[in-house]
Amino acid sequence: MAVILLALFKRPEGGDEAMATFMRRYRAEHLPLIAKVPGLRSTKVYEVTQKYAGDDIVVATRMKFDDKESLDAGMASPEMRDAGRILRDIAPRLLTLLALDDPAE
Amino acid sequence: MAVILLALFKRPEGGDEAMATFMRRYRAEHLPLIAKVPGLRSTKVYEVTQKYAGDDIVVATRMKFDDKESLDAGMASPEMRDAGRILRDIAPRLLTLLALDDPAE
Repeated sequence: MAVILLALFKRPEGGDEAMATFMRRYRAEHLPLIAKVPGLRSTKVYEVTQKYAGDDIVVATRMKFDDKESLDAGMASPEMRDAGRILRDIAPRLLTLLALDDPAE
Repeated sequence: MAVILLALFKRPEGGDEAMATFMRRYRAEHLPLIAKVPGLRSTKVYEVTQKYAGDDIVVATRMKFDDKESLDAGMASPEMRDAGRILRDIAPRLLTLLALDDPAE
């Protein structure tokens, strides 16, 4: 069964400028490292256009792996560690990171 | 451009029994009402299997609409109001509900 790694980012403090800086560094510094993670099949970045209820999440990124074993190997890889290190710099305490079963596949 | 309505649910208080009750009522009472929302193209419910960081989210549901106009009409529909009313009963204060642009389509 395919598994999804879902990264949810809350809005950074500091208004529109902080948000623009986060998005720029996320795309320019973090995503190129993510793209190198072994076993990763696809990555899709969704920007939030409206919040109806709950937490002020601004970005949801969906990363797909073939199965649980591929996800575990990817999570343990040096590439993922590098990607995570960048994230702690550009989005401290803003990240929720979850694994989901993808029941359709 | 297609748009995604993303519903994220945090873990209910009350341990495994509360979690099982939430999932049962979510699938038996809420989702059948969601299925009637006009303009909704597809619904996919993902259960969280692991949390690596951040909030304790247990379910992520992805609902797809053809475009922003369809989403707005669906959100304003009596069917969505009924579905939301049930949710306030079975998952009070646990929901984050977001609209996302789906850039691939």
